[in-house]
Amino acid sequence: MWLRTSCNLTFNITVPTPFVLMLRPRSGAQQWIALEEYNITPSVPVFEFTDIYGNFCQRLIAPPGAFAISTAAEVMIADVVDQAPGAAFVEIKNLPNGVLGYLLPSRYCQSDRFSQMATTITAGKKLGYDQVTAITEWLRDTIHFTPNKSNIAVSAIEVNHRGWGVCRDLAHLGIALCRSLSIPARMVVGYFYGLKPMDLHAWFEVYVGGRWYSFDATQQQIRGGYVAIGYGRDAADVAVYNQFGPALYPISQEINVEQINYPDRIPRAAL
Amino acid sequence: MWLRTSCNLTFNITVPTPFVLMLRPRSGAQQWIALEEYNITPSVPVFEFTDIYGNFCQRLIAPPGAFAISTAAEVMIADVVDQAPGAAFVEIKNLPNGVLGYLLPSRYCQSDRFSQMATTITAGKKLGYDQVTAITEWLRDTIHFTPNKSNIAVSAIEVNHRGWGVCRDLAHLGIALCRSLSIPARMVVGYFYGLKPMDLHAWFEVYVGGRWYSFDATQQQIRGGYVAIGYGRDAADVAVYNQFGPALYPISQEINVEQINYPDRIPRAAL
Amino acid sequence: MWLRTSCNLTFNITVPTPFVLMLRPRSGAQQWIALEEYNITPSVPVFEFTDIYGNFCQRLIAPPGAFAISTAAEVMIADVVDQAPGAAFVEIKNLPNGVLGYLLPSRYCQSDRFSQMATTITAGKKLGYDQVTAITEWLRDTIHFTPNKSNIAVSAIEVNHRGWGVCRDLAHLGIALCRSLSIPARMVVGYFYGLKPMDLHAWFEVYVGGRWYSFDATQQQIRGGYVAIGYGRDAADVAVYNQFGPALYPISQEINVEQINYPDRIPRAAL
Amino acid sequence: MWLRTSCNLTFNITVPTPFVLMLRPRSGAQQWIALEEYNITPSVPVFEFTDIYGNFCQRLIAPPGAFAISTAAEVMIADVVDQAPGAAFVEIKNLPNGVLGYLLPSRYCQSDRFSQMATTITAGKKLGYDQVTAITEWLRDTIHFTPNKSNIAVSAIEVNHRGWGVCRDLAHLGIALCRSLSIPARMVVGYFYGLKPMDLHAWFEVYVGGRWYSFDATQQQIRGGYVAIGYGRDAADVAVYNQFGPALYPISQEINVEQINYPDRIPRAAL
Repeated sequence: MWLRTSCNLTFNITVPTPFVLMLRPRSGAQQWIALEEYNITPSVPVFEFTDIYGNFCQRLIAPPGAFAISTAAEVMIADVVDQAPGAAFVEIKNLPNGVLGYLLPSRYCQSDRFSQMATTITAGKKLGYDQVTAITEWLRDTIHFTPNKSNIAVSAIEVNHRGWGVCRDLAHLGIALCRSLSIPARMVVGYFYGLKPMDLHAWFEVYVGGRWYSFDATQQQIRGGYVAIGYGRDAADVAVYNQFGPALYPISQEINVEQINYPDRIPRAAL
Repeated sequence: MWLRTSCNLTFNITVPTPFVLMLRPRSGAQQWIALEEYNITPSVPVFEFTDIYGNFCQRLIAPPGAFAISTAAEVMIADVVDQAPGAAFVEIKNLPNGVLGYLLPSRYCQSDRFSQMATTITAGKKLGYDQVTAITEWLRDTIHFTPNKSNIAVSAIEVNHRGWGVCRDLAHLGIALCRSLSIPARMVVGYFYGLKPMDLHAWFEVYVGGRWYSFDATQQQIRGGYVAIGYGRDAADVAVYNQFGPALYPISQEINVEQINYPDRIPRAAL
Repeated sequence: MWLRTSCNLTFNITVPTPFVLMLRPRSGAQQWIALEEYNITPSVPVFEFTDIYGNFCQRLIAPPGAFAISTAAEVMIADVVDQAPGAAFVEIKNLPNGVLGYLLPSRYCQSDRFSQMATTITAGKKLGYDQVTAITEWLRDTIHFTPNKSNIAVSAIEVNHRGWGVCRDLAHLGIALCRSLSIPARMVVGYFYGLKPMDLHAWFEVYVGGRWYSFDATQQQIRGGYVAIGYGRDAADVAVYNQFGPALYPISQEINVEQINYPDRIPRAAL
Repeated sequence: MWLRTSCNLTFNITVPTPFVLMLRPRSGAQQWIALEEYNITPSVPVFEFTDIYGNFCQRLIAPPGAFAISTAAEVMIADVVDQAPGAAFVEIKNLPNGVLGYLLPSRYCQSDRFSQMATTITAGKKLGYDQVTAITEWLRDTIHFTPNKSNIAVSAIEVNHRGWGVCRDLAHLGIALCRSLSIPARMVVGYFYGLKPMDLHAWFEVYVGGRWYSFDATQQQIRGGYVAIGYGRDAADVAVYNQFGPALYPISQEINVEQINYPDRIPRAAL
């Protein structure tokens, strides 16, 4: 499946403001970026670096006035996300070094406090993928998904008490529950085709059966349509923009994901 | 100043138990490891790797029975920790890429919730080092240091509500306050000469004036005697041992730090 | 200055053939990638990773038959490359850790054999940038630039004996001479606007005065127009394609670099 | 098997001289460092970093006068090095990302020039481990091992022409031959118990059957007793000391490797 994604952000800047953006998706085993556009208006120097999780980040200083960030990508992804019911729990000793860190508690995923609860939710399930399926179903049944109620990030503990949340919140609680069972889990932020209302999206991945698998408690069942932008322990690591100084919100934010018929698109060279 | 440090841990293992240890200090600009010993009894295969923060970690599976970890080091450190009253706040745009991550909130340091409080505490102070001094003094005056009351890790929010804590707790609150002012701050775990009662210790470092400086709210004033073992965003990252499976506590834990007269020590070659 | 670059390679594959490509330029301090296209025909799974030098590399298995790689980018670069006559030699002790490796000899740059020659060429010059200028002028005057005579890579020693070479060869000899003076030097492969005949290009960078500066012995004087794709110790590290198995050459290779008027280009969204 | 290794180097320094040392062995799957000593006399600031191959490196400025580096380690290693006759060639597509770089030619291993020769030497052998065995036997039979004839590093091409070499030279030719067959190969520098005359040693490892295996053409057959200090593409990467400025040789260099009865050694704590 080919998707065209775009994210356009506009800010009204009053004082020179440092930004760290995370808006450049990477090609990987599960997605191929065939076209990518990234425009900053007005044009300012941008320094790109790779963070400790492997994400591409862009640093810049936004000057006073209207400031626009415009990104787009044409991406090939699998028609359906890989699933592996029954995939086994990976014993700690067999986890790759780089995966171990995803067992630790993090800002919004206090996995050190969910051990009892996760054990109850997954009672009777085979260790591994099936435990995560049980957790995801529990989230769907228990935590009311409220896509419009955007707000400040809250932690898994708060989400659990509150009983409702945006995609990010459900992912946080899912991650905390998985880690408490020694299943490595990480946050993914990106695009999701067909999301209503359209917005940036968050879901989570777990490491079972020797690789990462995607889970999304906001959907009735996992399907295709995910384009990952960033990976991290939780939302603290994968903000698509981190801005420093006085609080500042986009005056406009347009996200779009559409399916395209890639081979037929007009090559730019032909324009 | 030369110190000899040692850490001896003994566990009673009932089922084969995966451990990730962080017990090998690194030589760096601020400390030189002239001798190091690291023994595991019984001897089992150990795999060492470097984590995302640059710490040396050791993975192993502890077999059932008595299991002992014994480490020691002879370390040269500065007589007095560097201090730099007045050292300037580093603007975000000038921070090295690798330092940016220490601005983010983390498991035990919810810096996203301390902005107002940090501003109040540091009112009137020059931006940078002097703000951190004010925070440290505030911690000393406000949060009762209770070295004997060891317990599970709690977050900066909880420490602030509770009003008392161990070294780790004071560091967490200090870190959260600094980051809320856009001052990069990180946790350090290690040894501290003269600590009473002797134990592993935790303090924090902040990035101001172009480098990292140490702060320790548990002491009346910063002096020498610190040997760092690990660095991270908070205690979640720098556990000297992470053990997986059923909860397990050391049946003995002996920490020792003594000053030595290095040039006069008996060379092993002469034994 | 805005440039549109493209590289189209076609191979006739007889047996499934592993490729490692290096055809995705990175945004950096000196260039900003505003649009990028990367197409593989037929479509096959591609795995991207970052190599030890920070380059983005793409792994894939080309299936038998016609196999085409098509990349393009729209890039903002400085109108004129930075120059810094007189910029000082950086003492070894002040070099960043990551720069030290560019002092070592490498496959095609046997800097361990050029100490005497480099000293002679740079006699009387101020240590640093001006030495490299002298080396570049010496290369221009001494090694005949033969852009059409493409052939297998040869080393700095061979280039020096032979007295002629393609851009890569001149860069290799320049790098070897610089390193022999303890000036870190690295190879860059990329595009160069106005190159005749148009082709991929290679030049070199040296670390003096606290940063990297570009040099190009194939041109009468350094100007703008460079778009970097990859960095490494020498050509062994920065092949735009490494292919394994029986020798295989592209049946067509089209490189193009044109200046564009970026703000006026037709946004894709308007198509 | 437990070994105690030591390396003592003394220099007579005339002008302040930058050094990069690589004298701290790492614990890994194949060796465990139970004790390590590292002394610099006179004491100077040392900065340690990890290079792109994962080696621990120490930077310092040696002051004028007598300058001594003294290191020792007590290491547990396997009694016999792992061997795996018949272990399969790993197809390029299955090589880990980090292993790919060891297929490239390097300063002293011009693998791009040995394809024909390697094919001849390994004719009829099963792809993988057995090819490397054939190469190692060919080296033993063809290149005269001359441990006393120490000299400047020469390349695989030169070693092949010359017909004799030190351990480093045999390793370089072995590595070049392996890489020309698309078998990843790397240089190892370290200690070897029982080496006559005792000195630092060099051998090579190849990646077949899903892991690295050791080969040593200087010995009639591979056995135990190897302690690795550093890994790299070739000798350019793994110098135990790199010194910058006027040429400088140690006025004394003492290497020692002895077998020890570890559990019975006198614990330092008992002194």
